[in-house]
Amino acid sequence: MTIQTLVWGENIHEQINRQVGQLYPDGMHCQIARLLTEDKDLSVSTATLREDQHGLSDERLETTDVLLWWGHQAHEQVSDEVVERIIHRVWQGMGLIVLHSGHFSKPFKRLMGTPCSLKWREAGEKERLWVVNPSHPIAKGLPQYFELESEEMYGEPFTIPDPLETVFISWFEGGEVFRSGLTYKRGAGHIFYFRPGHETYPTYYNPHVGQALRNAVHWAYNPSRVAAIADAPNVPADEAPEQLALRSEDNGAGTAAL
Amino acid sequence: MTIQTLVWGENIHEQINRQVGQLYPDGMHCQIARLLTEDKDLSVSTATLREDQHGLSDERLETTDVLLWWGHQAHEQVSDEVVERIIHRVWQGMGLIVLHSGHFSKPFKRLMGTPCSLKWREAGEKERLWVVNPSHPIAKGLPQYFELESEEMYGEPFTIPDPLETVFISWFEGGEVFRSGLTYKRGAGHIFYFRPGHETYPTYYNPHVGQALRNAVHWAYNPSRVAAIADAPNVPADEAPEQLALRSEDNGAGTAAL
Amino acid sequence: MTIQTLVWGENIHEQINRQVGQLYPDGMHCQIARLLTEDKDLSVSTATLREDQHGLSDERLETTDVLLWWGHQAHEQVSDEVVERIIHRVWQGMGLIVLHSGHFSKPFKRLMGTPCSLKWREAGEKERLWVVNPSHPIAKGLPQYFELESEEMYGEPFTIPDPLETVFISWFEGGEVFRSGLTYKRGAGHIFYFRPGHETYPTYYNPHVGQALRNAVHWAYNPSRVAAIADAPNVPADEAPEQLALRSEDNGAGTAAL
Amino acid sequence: MTIQTLVWGENIHEQINRQVGQLYPDGMHCQIARLLTEDKDLSVSTATLREDQHGLSDERLETTDVLLWWGHQAHEQVSDEVVERIIHRVWQGMGLIVLHSGHFSKPFKRLMGTPCSLKWREAGEKERLWVVNPSHPIAKGLPQYFELESEEMYGEPFTIPDPLETVFISWFEGGEVFRSGLTYKRGAGHIFYFRPGHETYPTYYNPHVGQALRNAVHWAYNPSRVAAIADAPNVPADEAPEQLALRSEDNGAGTAAL
Repeated sequence: MTIQTLVWGENIHEQINRQVGQLYPDGMHCQIARLLTEDKDLSVSTATLREDQHGLSDERLETTDVLLWWGHQAHEQVSDEVVERIIHRVWQGMGLIVLHSGHFSKPFKRLMGTPCSLKWREAGEKERLWVVNPSHPIAKGLPQYFELESEEMYGEPFTIPDPLETVFISWFEGGEVFRSGLTYKRGAGHIFYFRPGHETYPTYYNPHVGQALRNAVHWAYNPSRVAAIADAPNVPADEAPEQLALRSEDNGAGTAAL
Repeated sequence: MTIQTLVWGENIHEQINRQVGQLYPDGMHCQIARLLTEDKDLSVSTATLREDQHGLSDERLETTDVLLWWGHQAHEQVSDEVVERIIHRVWQGMGLIVLHSGHFSKPFKRLMGTPCSLKWREAGEKERLWVVNPSHPIAKGLPQYFELESEEMYGEPFTIPDPLETVFISWFEGGEVFRSGLTYKRGAGHIFYFRPGHETYPTYYNPHVGQALRNAVHWAYNPSRVAAIADAPNVPADEAPEQLALRSEDNGAGTAAL
Repeated sequence: MTIQTLVWGENIHEQINRQVGQLYPDGMHCQIARLLTEDKDLSVSTATLREDQHGLSDERLETTDVLLWWGHQAHEQVSDEVVERIIHRVWQGMGLIVLHSGHFSKPFKRLMGTPCSLKWREAGEKERLWVVNPSHPIAKGLPQYFELESEEMYGEPFTIPDPLETVFISWFEGGEVFRSGLTYKRGAGHIFYFRPGHETYPTYYNPHVGQALRNAVHWAYNPSRVAAIADAPNVPADEAPEQLALRSEDNGAGTAAL
Repeated sequence: MTIQTLVWGENIHEQINRQVGQLYPDGMHCQIARLLTEDKDLSVSTATLREDQHGLSDERLETTDVLLWWGHQAHEQVSDEVVERIIHRVWQGMGLIVLHSGHFSKPFKRLMGTPCSLKWREAGEKERLWVVNPSHPIAKGLPQYFELESEEMYGEPFTIPDPLETVFISWFEGGEVFRSGLTYKRGAGHIFYFRPGHETYPTYYNPHVGQALRNAVHWAYNPSRVAAIADAPNVPADEAPEQLALRSEDNGAGTAAL
């Protein structure tokens, strides 16, 4: 089994912010991809905002099992057509892993149906991620907690639907808490939100972050797809599982008029 | 306490289909409103598609506690601006009750983040709604089941997120089943989906349907509102709950550059 | 409407630990009851371990709408008969609010079906409870967070079932986090777990704790009761909602033999 | 990977009811085991009530990945010691699949924390199981519905906690509905309840039932175990993740006295 994994990166901060560019000289998406390629079951490629169709053509998504999404300052530049395409693929069974500031990305907000808002602070403070569900596959191989010396703070309330499962909760040096690892299912698609990953910190060089992401790809992979998930098929009366008695003409006439 | 309740009806079938017009001479929305006015705690008004802004101006929604939605053939005619307005109000705490074919309405699909698809058949068959959660406030005063002699069939799979609670499940004469009463919370808003209500049948004259709808309005009413629910406020470092140590200039410089 | 509220306290620490006795000279249960009587809708009484049947006779529970439970060192002294009685009442619709060390009480463990284990530390550290669901009725009137200067620490993983809703998450000075306010429904009963309340600290004099508890009693109150909730009634074939065709004698004979 | 699968059967009806004995001459547990051995990833064995410790010694459970449970008329004969042992194993990560009348078994009721009651009728009527979650691994390879010509009816309300996911809902000829396939997690253990399987019908010869059961074993298998899941470890102040300031002697003295 090989899981076709696609890492999407906005790739803007890396070009215009010296600090980010030094941290991630090939772009954040490439470093995230590198974390994933440590797992021989994953076949990893990347795509970015400036590519044609943001690198997310129908053909590309057709062969994608799990999509990872990092975006921040250009959410509004992602075309609605591509967003609808992504959402539809998720419903059909493509996994989606939304990273950090992707909480405000169009695909995530559309799949959650909520504002996805939160508090934030950029002070390079310590974040400690606690594993609250140690037997969950996304926590496999992780210690009871791991720390990131410098991260942006995200604080509750995080306005998302109550999740299927909570895997991580973060403690921040400045005094806040945040639900940092959340699972959802939408149609046949498995969705994981993972909090850390601010562009000015070396979060994507942390081995525990790498482990969590590789685990998440495995969890998000659904070998079962439902192609016609958005269809609403008519079941004619003569194909009903149980035989139906004939009803009055009036009903038929009335509905026929529509 | 009075709950300001607004019944929104598409009001198209009633104008163009003789059968529907005879069943609901004042429009389906008016008959639904009549069911609600039996409850003295509810102050009920109506709005329809053809009104300016579909009768759903900001001022109107500002004073609405619970909105009921019946739409079917004109989902696409509902303006996206009004849909965003509704969704935002729901997030802030306005209740929403989605009726029957409203499963495919823009507001419901946006709040669920799923296709909301299902199977269907129009054969005037019998539907029996079982109360699966008899102590739920929406089931108050209802028998263990109630029947509608003629209804449109909706069949599983219903592609919605797993609900907070399942209140009703329907048995259909033709052999299908359907989750007919489902609760959700999205932000501060309480959402209830209620299956029955095809336009060619006298469903909204059924006393049990009336009871369920009145109960649902009470359940959907949230006296608590969160006006700024979609905001993402910054918490400056010097306002953090815990005092933060100063960090290196580099970080500051890097983030300042954004 | 008056909600009949019963505060149950173990009342042992108060008798044998000087510090606890000075903090709560009338017993913790009486101070908790005092917090509740600030709400004129609540009629509050108390019961303790050493009373006959722990003060929880069938007659007493028959007239109880919501039971609060504080226990710690004597969980095993609570009789199994009384535990079964409580559980059955909760299933029928009595609300239950479990406080602090009650996470290991027999009624809570029986209703959760999980170990309800956690990490702990007694170092008098600061706890900050964040409201993660500000529009929830249990959070009514509370600020975005409130602090307890000295509390026992409880840390994740808290081995409970994924809750219906998460209302509070705690940040601890020593570096841990904890899901501090969780809602459940079991049968017709509403259950709320609320973390703070170690016996050696003045937690039950904190006005925010009082507000949360009064809110929780209102939330936990279910006016609807299901007396026969544990029964499994037979529905004879001739009373089935749909007429059933007669089946072969063999089946009848076979089942009759049982 | 081989999943160590243990089928537990009460094996009483088979001995005393001629019809059941003819249907399942080797016992129902052996026929269920036969369905599972079609899957080469499963290593299947059986155990029954009359064996020493019901065939469920600590050594036996130590090497069990997934336990299937069929019981009906002798629930009370299962020793509480063995029940506690099973529950503890489930919390640590052993999967549990509860079949049909096992809804009233001690292990299931203990893990759910609810009455697990339902309506029932023995009339050999038709049951149609609808797949409501077609992309769920337990539904893999199944058609949109499958039928059992003769089954016992189970009807709602089924007094279980709202499930993690609903996989099947049944339609019954006599007019009832039932949530027939439900998933739960309790600690590290995955639990699946599967409705069909009355002893007087050939349900365990149905190929779709076999497919669902094989799928369920794969789903219930959790390679991750949490041995110490019921422990509540103390974290001493000097081992806290963050350094704690020293507090007043009084606190220390007070707690030391306990």
